[in-house]
Amino acid sequence: MDKVVRSLKEAIELAGVQSGMTVSFHHHMRNGDYVLNMVMEELAQKGIKNLTVNASSVFDCHKPLIDHIRNGVVTKLCCNYMAAGVGRAISAGIMETPVEFRTHGGRPADIVSGKTPIDVAFIAAPTSDTMGNCTGKIGKSACGSLGYAYADAMYAKKVVVITDNLVPYPLTERSIDETYIDYVVPVEAIGDPAGIVSGTTKITRDPVGLVMAETAAKVIQASGLLKDGFSFQTGAGGATLAAAKFLKDIMLKDNIKGSFGLGGITGYMVDMLNAGCFQKLLDVQCFDLKAVESIRTNPNHAEVSAMHYASPNAKSAAVDSLDVVLLGATEVDLNFNVNVHTDSNGSIMGGSGGHSDTSAGAKLAMIIAPLSRARLPIVTDKVQCISTPGKTVDVLVTQRGVAVNPNQTELRKALEAAKLPVCDIEELKARAEAICGAPKAVRHGNKVVANVIYRDGTVIDQLYNVE
Amino acid sequence: MDKVVRSLKEAIELAGVQSGMTVSFHHHMRNGDYVLNMVMEELAQKGIKNLTVNASSVFDCHKPLIDHIRNGVVTKLCCNYMAAGVGRAISAGIMETPVEFRTHGGRPADIVSGKTPIDVAFIAAPTSDTMGNCTGKIGKSACGSLGYAYADAMYAKKVVVITDNLVPYPLTERSIDETYIDYVVPVEAIGDPAGIVSGTTKITRDPVGLVMAETAAKVIQASGLLKDGFSFQTGAGGATLAAAKFLKDIMLKDNIKGSFGLGGITGYMVDMLNAGCFQKLLDVQCFDLKAVESIRTNPNHAEVSAMHYASPNAKSAAVDSLDVVLLGATEVDLNFNVNVHTDSNGSIMGGSGGHSDTSAGAKLAMIIAPLSRARLPIVTDKVQCISTPGKTVDVLVTQRGVAVNPNQTELRKALEAAKLPVCDIEELKARAEAICGAPKAVRHGNKVVANVIYRDGTVIDQLYNVE
Repeated sequence: MDKVVRSLKEAIELAGVQSGMTVSFHHHMRNGDYVLNMVMEELAQKGIKNLTVNASSVFDCHKPLIDHIRNGVVTKLCCNYMAAGVGRAISAGIMETPVEFRTHGGRPADIVSGKTPIDVAFIAAPTSDTMGNCTGKIGKSACGSLGYAYADAMYAKKVVVITDNLVPYPLTERSIDETYIDYVVPVEAIGDPAGIVSGTTKITRDPVGLVMAETAAKVIQASGLLKDGFSFQTGAGGATLAAAKFLKDIMLKDNIKGSFGLGGITGYMVDMLNAGCFQKLLDVQCFDLKAVESIRTNPNHAEVSAMHYASPNAKSAAVDSLDVVLLGATEVDLNFNVNVHTDSNGSIMGGSGGHSDTSAGAKLAMIIAPLSRARLPIVTDKVQCISTPGKTVDVLVTQRGVAVNPNQTELRKALEAAKLPVCDIEELKARAEAICGAPKAVRHGNKVVANVIYRDGTVIDQLYNVE
Repeated sequence: MDKVVRSLKEAIELAGVQSGMTVSFHHHMRNGDYVLNMVMEELAQKGIKNLTVNASSVFDCHKPLIDHIRNGVVTKLCCNYMAAGVGRAISAGIMETPVEFRTHGGRPADIVSGKTPIDVAFIAAPTSDTMGNCTGKIGKSACGSLGYAYADAMYAKKVVVITDNLVPYPLTERSIDETYIDYVVPVEAIGDPAGIVSGTTKITRDPVGLVMAETAAKVIQASGLLKDGFSFQTGAGGATLAAAKFLKDIMLKDNIKGSFGLGGITGYMVDMLNAGCFQKLLDVQCFDLKAVESIRTNPNHAEVSAMHYASPNAKSAAVDSLDVVLLGATEVDLNFNVNVHTDSNGSIMGGSGGHSDTSAGAKLAMIIAPLSRARLPIVTDKVQCISTPGKTVDVLVTQRGVAVNPNQTELRKALEAAKLPVCDIEELKARAEAICGAPKAVRHGNKVVANVIYRDGTVIDQLYNVE
């Protein structure tokens, strides 16, 4: 009468996974995820080949994928983010079919519209009942939000929940409900929660980072958006967290009551919620265990699906109501196009995630990055990859100046009036090159290893193999 | 930037309602609902004709529908329940196209599958933010669960939220999220919460009702299902509530920890939750304001969508996990077929609602009804309408005996062993006719006024006009 099966093998057989199908995964366990590997290992052992893996993100813990690709088990890969471990292999050209990179909003949009159908979705669920009502908020492997898994669960032909905390029916704290679930597999462990922690999640102590951060906070203040009702997204990097800290100080000092914080949520955003800087947090994934604890206990910290977070096909998404987003970059070109997919050599080490979704949605999309990294200027003539189109990027903040997109004349005036170190983006390039020298041109191979699909469905760039 | 429009008229124009389209409504405001009437009045004033109205239920407060039908504004009606006020007019034959009756599970199944597409859904929302995130749990017109509105919101081409409590973005206590909503219309009042209260909601004091109720509780006890993990649904009638009271007494005395209560939820089920008889309540609609208060404040009292409650097309629904359901009837025939659509004259005064969904899902489906009503025996040779097929009905409890469906031989043995007054259903008919006499045959007209569509999509019965 219930949906619990004895083993993953049995679930795979019941779900009918066959060669040529598409299987999907979500990444809330991040670099601590066990589920993608255990499923792919089982599929490989069954002799299944020619699979498409549609994973919201691929982390270094997923390096066994490389062997599955080499062995023909996996012949196509779709994701929104790929860490350098697997990225280097893809950039080396191990796949015949190019990887499809999407955005955190574009992926669910394409699943919902049927462009990227999923045969069998595997949901890593920190708690599930016997009929598949499941949540990420409780259990020994609690990861908080399951935002990216909603589209997979709602639209895959078959859906398998894999859990290490099976509870009696009915689980009412569910994120995803039983109406979508076919099978429930209890396992020893779905992951290591310690691996959830993303990036540094600590505020930078680097003086350069602190200068950038303080400048970024002042840019937000000068933009006119920092007032009651303010909404904000930031990443988990040391400098962006430091910027959030400066912003928090301003908000508390000036008694500004923000509306909501959005995105992947860190403990730092939780602190801002608890300090009254925001009324609400909208959380599509938790970046650390403090965020996990908060989403479990604080009703003002709410889970949102990836569609609700950022889908361009939804009737609206939270990014459409966002005031300011603070984002990173590996490169920015003179047209404000941003690369977050590759390093300066063109080797894959990231992906858009929500970068281009939030840039498109926010009233003010800010990039924060040092003038140079490892003696390579951040501003280049041409980025190795257009992850986020420059027309959606408003400001680049560095430690040596703030460049405003020429399409934002009012903003530039406001920043100048606030005596911020505004300059043209060409000046930032020149300043870096004066110190580092002009970078050597990067040579890439002739094989397309990835297509970068923008949130509107167009292929915005292609990545080539790195020789 | 937000979705708020100035008037219902503007929303209707933006949503593009045209003659021949389907508009939909849900019934959580029950007999206190203002929204269906205000929308239909606006559509009539615009000269729109030939509409299909797909309303989860129609109450007496919706009598203005009769004029809209007479004037050609509405030419087709789909619902799961229709109170006698509109029912009498339908049974008089005022529509050319038969009404389509579905079940609370069948309606969302047909919306999801595309069998009954909706052009514009109107959601009566006690609270909504400016982007359409909405809930029934808070606001001056709080109605609790919005369970029946999910399918409409998720699958209609255009969705209009009508609210009398507009709040700033983002509302995180939402039931239905902004990704589905096109327009938000603030109005003075969406309904009168006093009209939510369904049926008597008071335990009967009638001695006949108390005998039936006590017998029903003993049947449940004797069935073997009343043990830890027990799950239960009951209605809001005086005798079914009394049965719940007897059941509660047994559960508390024997320290039985039930699993969940399901369905339309009354304050009486809330009391059982709070007394520890159940761990959880799964609530598709609140039958009174005590239930509304509970769903707002008690995390163990959870909203479920109509798909989650009862859809036959979902991968599972809560009714599939249900142990016992206690249901009413206007007539039961010798094959245990149950009529809840019409009175004994065949005039429409109800509908299946969740009757046949829960009968099909529950391990033990019980009908509780007096031997006769108004000198008409409850057991007849042939019911005026097969609402719920007899093969899914297990027991009929009356004050003069308990009839067990012949397909339940083990159950009959168990009830006999418990010394319950078990008899054949023919005996109940004979006992009633010995008192009341045999009823006169009812004559109906030749015009089909309604098709009764069972949860599997088949037309299980047809209703004719009453002369």
